[in-house]
Amino acid sequence: MTQWLPTLKTATPQEGYELAVKMARVAIKMTQPDAEVRDKLRPVYAENADALIASSQVVATHFATVAAANDYWRDAT
Amino acid sequence: MTQWLPTLKTATPQEGYELAVKMARVAIKMTQPDAEVRDKLRPVYAENADALIASSQVVATHFATVAAANDYWRDAT
Amino acid sequence: MTQWLPTLKTATPQEGYELAVKMARVAIKMTQPDAEVRDKLRPVYAENADALIASSQVVATHFATVAAANDYWRDAT
Amino acid sequence: MTQWLPTLKTATPQEGYELAVKMARVAIKMTQPDAEVRDKLRPVYAENADALIASSQVVATHFATVAAANDYWRDAT
Amino acid sequence: MTQWLPTLKTATPQEGYELAVKMARVAIKMTQPDAEVRDKLRPVYAENADALIASSQVVATHFATVAAANDYWRDAT
Amino acid sequence: MTQWLPTLKTATPQEGYELAVKMARVAIKMTQPDAEVRDKLRPVYAENADALIASSQVVATHFATVAAANDYWRDAT
Repeated sequence: MTQWLPTLKTATPQEGYELAVKMARVAIKMTQPDAEVRDKLRPVYAENADALIASSQVVATHFATVAAANDYWRDAT
Repeated sequence: MTQWLPTLKTATPQEGYELAVKMARVAIKMTQPDAEVRDKLRPVYAENADALIASSQVVATHFATVAAANDYWRDAT
Repeated sequence: MTQWLPTLKTATPQEGYELAVKMARVAIKMTQPDAEVRDKLRPVYAENADALIASSQVVATHFATVAAANDYWRDAT
Repeated sequence: MTQWLPTLKTATPQEGYELAVKMARVAIKMTQPDAEVRDKLRPVYAENADALIASSQVVATHFATVAAANDYWRDAT
Repeated sequence: MTQWLPTLKTATPQEGYELAVKMARVAIKMTQPDAEVRDKLRPVYAENADALIASSQVVATHFATVAAANDYWRDAT
Repeated sequence: MTQWLPTLKTATPQEGYELAVKMARVAIKMTQPDAEVRDKLRPVYAENADALIASSQVVATHFATVAAANDYWRDAT
């Protein structure tokens, strides 16, 4: 796998949130490496409320980590 | 996507809670960008106890992060 | 929405726990603002073991935050 | 409700664990105050693997809080 | 119940992980004390992907606590 | 079981993420030690959106611990 997570540092909370979304997706890729299968699954969960909420939960967990790594962007102005 | 998360700082715990609710929703938007589909899903989960509780869990996870970022609003009076 | 979360400070762990229960419920109110719908859902989840356990999980997550905010009530006697 | 959570301090990790179990149960009592209903639900979830695992998750979350409150019982010998 | 959790200290991360697995199981024993019932449930969840993943989640939560208690085994070499 | 977790230290966030994936899988191995059964379960959950998301959640929880253990790789450049 190529370099996709060189650092947890981001310039802003929003970029940190986008990183968290990416981090949530990579675990799925590592468990289901077949892009074709993932493409078939996407519409299923993207139209399913439970799956969307569960995805949002994973993002929230990763965002907590990214936020701590960035000291909550306290120094940013 | 426009700027929606410039900072994790809020004046009060309640504003922090409202930010957490917003953060929970954005992940859903990023996974299901089609507003029409989301509009169809909303009544489904808003009348489903399990989905409501799961949503509340995502909010709780984000709130933990926002609260830490604000040092639990200890300096506020 | 009226002021419902002015502070995370509570006098005792038990009051902190009660605050966590309240925090778990508010997210549900914000997703399903119709009190009538919520009243119809309550008996459904209050008699469903899975929903009760999931609710208890949300309370546990909020309690962790409230406890940290109160420095675990270490100074209380 | 009577005093049931005067402190998060316990003498040992095991007592902390037992407190976490208690904390997981109280949220259920607060959502379903009717002891008779709870008595009917108990055999349902106590013989259901998913419910048992979910209960164990709630205990794990509360234990994390109790352990932090006790500074992980580092001073105990 | 006999002494089963005298300390959260372990010599290595791997022993900490094994302790986390044990901690995940004890909550199940406390909710379903009947060993015979648990023996009947085991094959059910051990052959069910969802239950296995949920169990792994509980272990992850306990491991976070054990790791913090051991200061992430930073002093070990 | 052989030594599989000698340390939580990794050189980069990405290696930390890979370690988190491994940590998520080991709990499943410990609950279902039969490799043949696990091989039969893999295609089931690898083609099921809910299971994939739940797996990603476990990885997120372990990654939080690994990231803290590495002080978020702040010293790395």
